[in-house]
Amino acid sequence: MPVRLITLTTDFGLSDHYVGVMKGVILSICPRAQIVDISHGVRAYEIPEAAFTIWQSYRYFPRGTVHVLVVDPGVGTARRPILAQAAGQYFVAPDNGVLSMVYNRETHKVRAISNTRYFLQPVSHTFHGRDVFAPAAAHLAAGIAPARFGKLIQDYLRLDFDKPARTGRRTWTGTILKVDRFGNIVTNFSVEDFPDLDKREFEVAAGPRRIRVLAPHYAACGRGEPFLIVGSAGHYEISVSQESAAKLLGCAAGAPLELALL
Amino acid sequence: MPVRLITLTTDFGLSDHYVGVMKGVILSICPRAQIVDISHGVRAYEIPEAAFTIWQSYRYFPRGTVHVLVVDPGVGTARRPILAQAAGQYFVAPDNGVLSMVYNRETHKVRAISNTRYFLQPVSHTFHGRDVFAPAAAHLAAGIAPARFGKLIQDYLRLDFDKPARTGRRTWTGTILKVDRFGNIVTNFSVEDFPDLDKREFEVAAGPRRIRVLAPHYAACGRGEPFLIVGSAGHYEISVSQESAAKLLGCAAGAPLELALL
Amino acid sequence: MPVRLITLTTDFGLSDHYVGVMKGVILSICPRAQIVDISHGVRAYEIPEAAFTIWQSYRYFPRGTVHVLVVDPGVGTARRPILAQAAGQYFVAPDNGVLSMVYNRETHKVRAISNTRYFLQPVSHTFHGRDVFAPAAAHLAAGIAPARFGKLIQDYLRLDFDKPARTGRRTWTGTILKVDRFGNIVTNFSVEDFPDLDKREFEVAAGPRRIRVLAPHYAACGRGEPFLIVGSAGHYEISVSQESAAKLLGCAAGAPLELALL
Repeated sequence: MPVRLITLTTDFGLSDHYVGVMKGVILSICPRAQIVDISHGVRAYEIPEAAFTIWQSYRYFPRGTVHVLVVDPGVGTARRPILAQAAGQYFVAPDNGVLSMVYNRETHKVRAISNTRYFLQPVSHTFHGRDVFAPAAAHLAAGIAPARFGKLIQDYLRLDFDKPARTGRRTWTGTILKVDRFGNIVTNFSVEDFPDLDKREFEVAAGPRRIRVLAPHYAACGRGEPFLIVGSAGHYEISVSQESAAKLLGCAAGAPLELALL
Repeated sequence: MPVRLITLTTDFGLSDHYVGVMKGVILSICPRAQIVDISHGVRAYEIPEAAFTIWQSYRYFPRGTVHVLVVDPGVGTARRPILAQAAGQYFVAPDNGVLSMVYNRETHKVRAISNTRYFLQPVSHTFHGRDVFAPAAAHLAAGIAPARFGKLIQDYLRLDFDKPARTGRRTWTGTILKVDRFGNIVTNFSVEDFPDLDKREFEVAAGPRRIRVLAPHYAACGRGEPFLIVGSAGHYEISVSQESAAKLLGCAAGAPLELALL
Repeated sequence: MPVRLITLTTDFGLSDHYVGVMKGVILSICPRAQIVDISHGVRAYEIPEAAFTIWQSYRYFPRGTVHVLVVDPGVGTARRPILAQAAGQYFVAPDNGVLSMVYNRETHKVRAISNTRYFLQPVSHTFHGRDVFAPAAAHLAAGIAPARFGKLIQDYLRLDFDKPARTGRRTWTGTILKVDRFGNIVTNFSVEDFPDLDKREFEVAAGPRRIRVLAPHYAACGRGEPFLIVGSAGHYEISVSQESAAKLLGCAAGAPLELALL
């Protein structure tokens, strides 16, 4: 049997034993799994940030990869664990909207994981990463067919935080999906939806600043001048050369942004 | 020969090259080793926190796993490196009490690692993770028999920070073993020792607060109300829904806790 | 084909998806690669720190390892990607001086990577870790010959921040290469260049303090007393027992140090 990739995306951080324990559970069930951390630094309970993180990542992994997402403020309540299939890959996650950006862009099907034989017993009320999501993913990677985990469902939770709202003929209100380590501000304005910002005049209002420049690379503008740039995610980002745009503009994930075409 | 798992638990953090170098040393000696990080975020020199971390983790790994612990304020002094066997697994660590919680719960035997042929030469005075613990673990994973590393010893260091002290007929003084990323406070009151808190009245004094509620899951109490919960470690934890209990109560690892049965 | 090791050293941090995506790209091209993180916590844009990090690490990895370095303030500009060979290993990096300490100590040859067939297309202007360095390293690990990537060059960038400047008959001005997690200050004074500090009197001026003691291990001096110690890197370090020397002395990477032989 070939090696099967399993990726992990959580808000567990790396200081505690949680991520290591999930890996122990996976390798006990599926010794040939190869585990890749995508990020454990999603801010605690932030479903949109987790959704953006996996959406940025899954397309770079081979077919058959199993992606595990555990950003799960509802752990211990009735929210269901789900197994989604999209783009030839698998996604094991709580049904809390964390897969919304995948749903919005890929044909997909979703199952509620109800077969408790693929869980670690007894299931705790506080650590489903260990007791539910890791073992389900490991059994899947070990060859258990998706249908064995539970039935297809239609009423899974799908959020739409990733699309700006049109507020006028030439104006939209969007939001900050993510601030990265360098202070780059990832917006929910995508190149796909706004393909011509390099050909026309525009203005983005972010915090106290108005930005009218689309730069070709990070070093194109002077120090201290924020600019728009096509980010590696296919979304417009706001950056400042070798500085934190988020700090300069006083903005954090979730803050509003205004786009006007002039 | 099958793949052999090696886990790493240190206070080295992830900003420096230390952990990467340990992995290079391991893979140079035992190319088929599969290395899993449990945590490198143990607070610097905190032996109880490291002891708790490995105790939470080892049981989720397969038989034969080699666990390496390097939280080692005495590096360069006469403290011995040891190789312990317990629960079908191996533990390579300094003899400073970091395995106490494993000793307290599992039949075990302990060897002093004295055979310097399994070290990297010359051994530095500051980085035994690289020069002593990683190579010893790699040779063990590569098939060297435990007895080759050194003789069984009885006088290894065993601490008892993990058990509350009885202070009255119905009162105990315990301590905080760990504060996790979410601000959950892990106490040293275990469900095993105090199995009936769900059936009787109790009070836990933590910082300025008195806690009398045992909640079934994180979302069961209102915002801002600390509660007790059975943690995934089998210990009682103090939590607040979607907030940091440690911040709310002003408590850190090592702080005292009082339990009274009413 | 044997497993091929690929190491990663970046300033990407671990909160974002960047490192996970690089791993997905590598494993899509070279499924048998084994990936080891050296550090993703290099301070943003700090080329000397990255240079020190890889220089500390490569010698502990087996022959044939491919080391990827992405600390790249010039991403998107004309700076070249390079492939260096030294010590039987490979180094894939931007041509910005990040390999200087390897060049200064090993026989080496350097190629400019110009063959774009080994890049992910289209190449973004902001994430060459994903689009250039990870895929080039993966193709190399998968068996593509170095000469296929591009021609040998002589005009690669080589910096000399790692050598103190002589300022008098018995005085030198050096610098701090790195402050590690424990607050140890790694200097650019090496034991190789200054082999006899254990046999003669010396004084190191660091911030407001004068240090005249060379200690054999971390626990040799009292609390609060900074001392010099031979670090695991073969460089002299300034440390304080169980405290942060950097905090005590108010020093950060890049700060000057004065050595006088008395």
